[in-house]
Amino acid sequence: MFYWFDIFGVVVFAITGSLAAGNKNLDLFGGLVLALVTALGGGTLRDVILGNYPIFWVADLSYIYVVSATALLMFVIARYKKIPVRTLLVADAFGLAFFSVLGAQVALQQGSPAVVAIIMGMLTGVAGGIIRDILSNEIPLILRQEIYATAALAGAAGFVGLSQLWDISQLNLALAAALTLGLRLAALKWEFSLPVFLTNQDK
Amino acid sequence: MFYWFDIFGVVVFAITGSLAAGNKNLDLFGGLVLALVTALGGGTLRDVILGNYPIFWVADLSYIYVVSATALLMFVIARYKKIPVRTLLVADAFGLAFFSVLGAQVALQQGSPAVVAIIMGMLTGVAGGIIRDILSNEIPLILRQEIYATAALAGAAGFVGLSQLWDISQLNLALAAALTLGLRLAALKWEFSLPVFLTNQDK
Amino acid sequence: MFYWFDIFGVVVFAITGSLAAGNKNLDLFGGLVLALVTALGGGTLRDVILGNYPIFWVADLSYIYVVSATALLMFVIARYKKIPVRTLLVADAFGLAFFSVLGAQVALQQGSPAVVAIIMGMLTGVAGGIIRDILSNEIPLILRQEIYATAALAGAAGFVGLSQLWDISQLNLALAAALTLGLRLAALKWEFSLPVFLTNQDK
Repeated sequence: MFYWFDIFGVVVFAITGSLAAGNKNLDLFGGLVLALVTALGGGTLRDVILGNYPIFWVADLSYIYVVSATALLMFVIARYKKIPVRTLLVADAFGLAFFSVLGAQVALQQGSPAVVAIIMGMLTGVAGGIIRDILSNEIPLILRQEIYATAALAGAAGFVGLSQLWDISQLNLALAAALTLGLRLAALKWEFSLPVFLTNQDK
Repeated sequence: MFYWFDIFGVVVFAITGSLAAGNKNLDLFGGLVLALVTALGGGTLRDVILGNYPIFWVADLSYIYVVSATALLMFVIARYKKIPVRTLLVADAFGLAFFSVLGAQVALQQGSPAVVAIIMGMLTGVAGGIIRDILSNEIPLILRQEIYATAALAGAAGFVGLSQLWDISQLNLALAAALTLGLRLAALKWEFSLPVFLTNQDK
Repeated sequence: MFYWFDIFGVVVFAITGSLAAGNKNLDLFGGLVLALVTALGGGTLRDVILGNYPIFWVADLSYIYVVSATALLMFVIARYKKIPVRTLLVADAFGLAFFSVLGAQVALQQGSPAVVAIIMGMLTGVAGGIIRDILSNEIPLILRQEIYATAALAGAAGFVGLSQLWDISQLNLALAAALTLGLRLAALKWEFSLPVFLTNQDK
């Protein structure tokens, strides 16, 4: 189940990378690069920081195949069907949810302390999308008003917390991913946000 | 003493990350992400490039706690007190000074050759701030006219040079950090700069 | 021969980093930082992802010396001779060609599967230039219309393919690098591009 969640996260982030490439009129292989760094960037950062070698997509080639197939498919689909920009935001929310929780889980499995697992989960969740947004010259989602890093942190912390209560890790995974996804989709729908930082600043 | 210098550098960079988050109206946890990558990014890059595992903040959790506490504190303080933008520049200068010198020291301790230690020191010093500026969509300080990379290089090279003269590493640390800090603060105050690169270009 | 190709790639990327620094009026050491990250960034990313320690420029100091000498030389030359912006594009094409092929070769030598070697080659080729463009606040070349990632992918895939046909690796290197270089220079000259991604989008 973890594996399929991971593949699902990879697919949705590859879709967002492809859509970002489309919005910039990149060609097929430019889209492939953007899909690869978006889908594999967060997990790569996680594995490199944890010293987890070989990196997950070097150890298991199916990740590269899945991203490549997704990018190719999006290339074809997008020629026949108009894809609203909002799709990118929703797909990104799914990727954020799965990667935040799975990032925390990989760190825990490796024996990291709880607080490291929470930070690694949050970083795994937000990194791919940040790299995508920077490479495609957009303002990173994490800088926008709606809840983003908070949702990633909630999912990662929720998973780590539940893992210390009981051992049913598939349930924990589902609950924690649902928490991140719910927070993020609600934030997109009703545009709510936490109190912002430093309201009293001159800019 | 090295340890406390390091913690001090982490605190000032966490402050700059929080202030940058405030200037972008991020929420509390967006501010935490920015504080974390600013304060821990340079050292993470250093440890990853040197293959120094476990990464410093995984090995010693106090770094994460210090950054989180700083971000939370800034969140509260900034609501009651107006913080001038210049504060970010001065705090950044302190972080630049400490991290450049400590980055060089970590590389030397690990047995790196002098020239690698100098480069690693400079990279450790400038990386956190560069990541902060890119993530918060500002023109990186390193691209501005005033002396920046030069100050980091001077401190790192000064520390490595002094280390080959004598063994009093705490004195070397203080002298080299003072060199970087003095250069950078002077550059901010009097806006002086080195001769610029390539004055004869068409753009 | 591989070694000299590698040094040549480092020199041309260091030149592009220096020119980018010049276009932004950076000072000498700001130019050095930009030359270093452009010339050594792609290979560093490759070695870090493959867990190839020590990183190539820590293992062999001549890379740092070559980049520093190149940055210094460009600093002097550019004061006496006007360098057209197009030079940056052409030098970048050479760097792209050599690094894509050499990145694939390093991965193959390390025992990576063919598909990983192709991806690593492409990433090694495009990463340095992407970091340079982001740090110097320019729209990354990879986002422009003309063939870029495609050329890197073609060279890396060509090298990996030829390597499975015969063992004359120096010939393979020359052929594959010529393929990338030819594609990229032709794309620059005649401004042709692949069909773009997702033409049917609202933005």
